[in-house]
Amino acid sequence: MNNFVYHNPTELIFGKGQISVLADKVQKLGKSILLVYGGGSIKRTGLYDKVIAILQEQGCTVNEVAGVEPNPRLSTVQKGIDLCKQNKIDWILAVGGGSVIDAAKAMATGAVYEGNVWDFYSRKAVPKGALPLGTILTLAATGSEMNRGSVITNWETQEKHGGTGTFPTFSILDPEHTFSVPKDQTIYGICDIMSHVFEQYFSHTENIPLQTRFAESILLTVIENAQKAIDNPNDYDARANLLYCGTMALNGTLPVGVVTDWATHSIEHAVSAIYDIPHGGGLAIIFPQWMRYVYKENVERFKRFAIHVWNVDPAGKSDDEIALAGIEATEAFFKKIGAPTRLADYQITDEKIDEMAKKATPFGPIGNFKKLHAEDVAQILRMSL
Amino acid sequence: MNNFVYHNPTELIFGKGQISVLADKVQKLGKSILLVYGGGSIKRTGLYDKVIAILQEQGCTVNEVAGVEPNPRLSTVQKGIDLCKQNKIDWILAVGGGSVIDAAKAMATGAVYEGNVWDFYSRKAVPKGALPLGTILTLAATGSEMNRGSVITNWETQEKHGGTGTFPTFSILDPEHTFSVPKDQTIYGICDIMSHVFEQYFSHTENIPLQTRFAESILLTVIENAQKAIDNPNDYDARANLLYCGTMALNGTLPVGVVTDWATHSIEHAVSAIYDIPHGGGLAIIFPQWMRYVYKENVERFKRFAIHVWNVDPAGKSDDEIALAGIEATEAFFKKIGAPTRLADYQITDEKIDEMAKKATPFGPIGNFKKLHAEDVAQILRMSL
Repeated sequence: MNNFVYHNPTELIFGKGQISVLADKVQKLGKSILLVYGGGSIKRTGLYDKVIAILQEQGCTVNEVAGVEPNPRLSTVQKGIDLCKQNKIDWILAVGGGSVIDAAKAMATGAVYEGNVWDFYSRKAVPKGALPLGTILTLAATGSEMNRGSVITNWETQEKHGGTGTFPTFSILDPEHTFSVPKDQTIYGICDIMSHVFEQYFSHTENIPLQTRFAESILLTVIENAQKAIDNPNDYDARANLLYCGTMALNGTLPVGVVTDWATHSIEHAVSAIYDIPHGGGLAIIFPQWMRYVYKENVERFKRFAIHVWNVDPAGKSDDEIALAGIEATEAFFKKIGAPTRLADYQITDEKIDEMAKKATPFGPIGNFKKLHAEDVAQILRMSL
Repeated sequence: MNNFVYHNPTELIFGKGQISVLADKVQKLGKSILLVYGGGSIKRTGLYDKVIAILQEQGCTVNEVAGVEPNPRLSTVQKGIDLCKQNKIDWILAVGGGSVIDAAKAMATGAVYEGNVWDFYSRKAVPKGALPLGTILTLAATGSEMNRGSVITNWETQEKHGGTGTFPTFSILDPEHTFSVPKDQTIYGICDIMSHVFEQYFSHTENIPLQTRFAESILLTVIENAQKAIDNPNDYDARANLLYCGTMALNGTLPVGVVTDWATHSIEHAVSAIYDIPHGGGLAIIFPQWMRYVYKENVERFKRFAIHVWNVDPAGKSDDEIALAGIEATEAFFKKIGAPTRLADYQITDEKIDEMAKKATPFGPIGNFKKLHAEDVAQILRMSL
């Protein structure tokens, strides 16, 4: 186990009807609010009206940024920052999935920064402060509700980068808010959660038994609840478990003392920066191919994965066969729940592979399980066609 | 899964040599420090000198409370509070195990309270504030380094109660600081950690798959590292795993959305309030008997425990036999690592059983897995003789 520092100040408020705490939060954080949301699904489900009713009852002044994109854009973030600066916003309330929260984080840091907020994504600067941020999560997926990461796309330069945002002050997670998530988004969310665990599970760090078991616990729980939530969108228990797994998968618990990977996320970001495909769909395609490309770096880890997560029977199999059986089980699971498994599913050909490979490695080789250069990335993308 | 709120602002600083962050903490928190420690083992190991050297180099003024007892006493806490009030202490630094940290929490809350700090333990009041508290942990056991619980003994009234303290601002966990922990204390710590998990694992709450797996993950990791740390006190990896398990067992992760029990802790507190026995030793004795007394309330849960934690083969066994095999495995494990298994090991007879049973239930019946009245507690204590 390596040395580590863990610090996560986000207050997680989980369960049915928890939105009622919003009134108390207004009393604590202030009445001038920037409300940030996406394409309008929260209006269809009635969540928008509920939020507005509580804010109005508390006498709040509400500015809005609507229409945050699935891959949130710098231009949208800039709108929010301008509103914050012009209207003396006390705090930001993000209502939506990871994209909305990521955009709101960028607004929160950008609002108290004199330079261009893109500096935090192009690694030119690190935020020194932020407006308080509350979130009401509507999708089990990114974990953004309880970490300080944020991914923003600069559409002008076709760059998509993860940067340091800010921890939400509080996040409200009501499984019922995820009942209306459409089937495809539910599936992408499941792929996203599992991919986050993979990025932190596949590691050469030795002596991390609790971290390893925690990661396997999340994978097993997602696997056991995925189909239930897909088949019955209003299954409270399945939705609750996925929601909680999504948060625990990326709130800093799994990587303590562990050298993590994250190459596959960089590859997917490069793909979706060019093709604007769903993040979770891209991950479901690329991850099994990444696994095939790298597993020989640590066959033991992939054996453990196969046996503990996919219940592969090791009897009579070679180490490689066990490891590969786990990878096949991963791919088969993604396929079974209806996730895409090939770039061709998104009409992506080999045309821009070199461009994507280059874009995935802007600061040099990526990943730690196996250091991947542009040519490695190109190879994995070719395997994913 | 029930609704829950999770919020844990403690910064966990883990690993070899992390004590060096202390200088930075002084810069942030201030130079007038109350240093709190126990019976002097930190002087023998040299940790005291290291801490003082850093504080001196930073130009700190240091007041001290030494000699905090294994079951920390209200009178000792009061000394610390008086020092805080008289010397304008900026923050408290606790160096030691759970007892020292628990006492320091009571000092931190008492220092900014006009009434008697015992109010926070006799349930007359809840702390509204506290001095900042840093901790340097020297024992894997109580989890106090990352929660706001605190257990204090009022020796005059022979009462031992858990109360609300304050979250440490930061906690430094260096496995090397636990190398010098004597064998018996190492064993008690292991029993304590496992007992904390038991209190949160044995629950009737349905649909808590991730919480269940996390709890089992901690138990498995403790079981796998216990003997290593006992046999080789300088085994960094074993010590590191126990230390991290101790923190995760009681930092609020396991009980989210779960109705937990805690009856056995109340029983043990009543025993050690009268006989002043080691907390971990008392738990090792009482827990298996509590299990035997209550398991029929939810045989399924005890079956799962037996199979997933103790690898009990269910083939050919009745439900009760599987459940009991898990309980026997628990008792056998405690015995194997050298923990006491009978109250007689501490020369405790049936003389004061009714007194202890009454003391364990001062506010009415205890526990949730099975509500225990004084007569139930007396029965469990008799089974533990």
